[in-house]
Amino acid sequence: MHKLYFHRDPKRGVEETYNWLVDEVKELGEALRMLDNKALENEFADVIAWLASLANVANVDLEKAALNKYDSRCPKCKRSPCQCTF
Amino acid sequence: MHKLYFHRDPKRGVEETYNWLVDEVKELGEALRMLDNKALENEFADVIAWLASLANVANVDLEKAALNKYDSRCPKCKRSPCQCTF
Repeated sequence: MHKLYFHRDPKRGVEETYNWLVDEVKELGEALRMLDNKALENEFADVIAWLASLANVANVDLEKAALNKYDSRCPKCKRSPCQCTF
Repeated sequence: MHKLYFHRDPKRGVEETYNWLVDEVKELGEALRMLDNKALENEFADVIAWLASLANVANVDLEKAALNKYDSRCPKCKRSPCQCTF
């Protein structure tokens, strides 16, 4: 995503990129109520693409952030599979 | 995420998992307005974790969906970097 879109992302800015992400999450919600699996896959792809663009604009390494918190264990109970009782 | 949480995710169901994702996206929006980079990384990690859980519950391969649509080229103009003029 960085290579594909970073030349454009910073011009859009954090707030507008976040608003795009929110719109894509809404579209994902609508697709979840349909029975069109291809459309659903498309919406999941769009959400992760906009999340990656937002991370780029906010100067966050998305992969590193995810692995730091969830790398093969639950961040709360520290086990895999998670054994939290809540 | 599948290994960590899939034993619990299906019990929660698609709708409730989606609602958790929406809540995490809101928290990400709040974190973007703060100056705490560690908190921001945490929120990005939570959004991608819930997105992965939602994909598991909805029986979608998130990585495959993303790569099918965005694998090294823009899905609209088919170029990398994207050269769409909109």
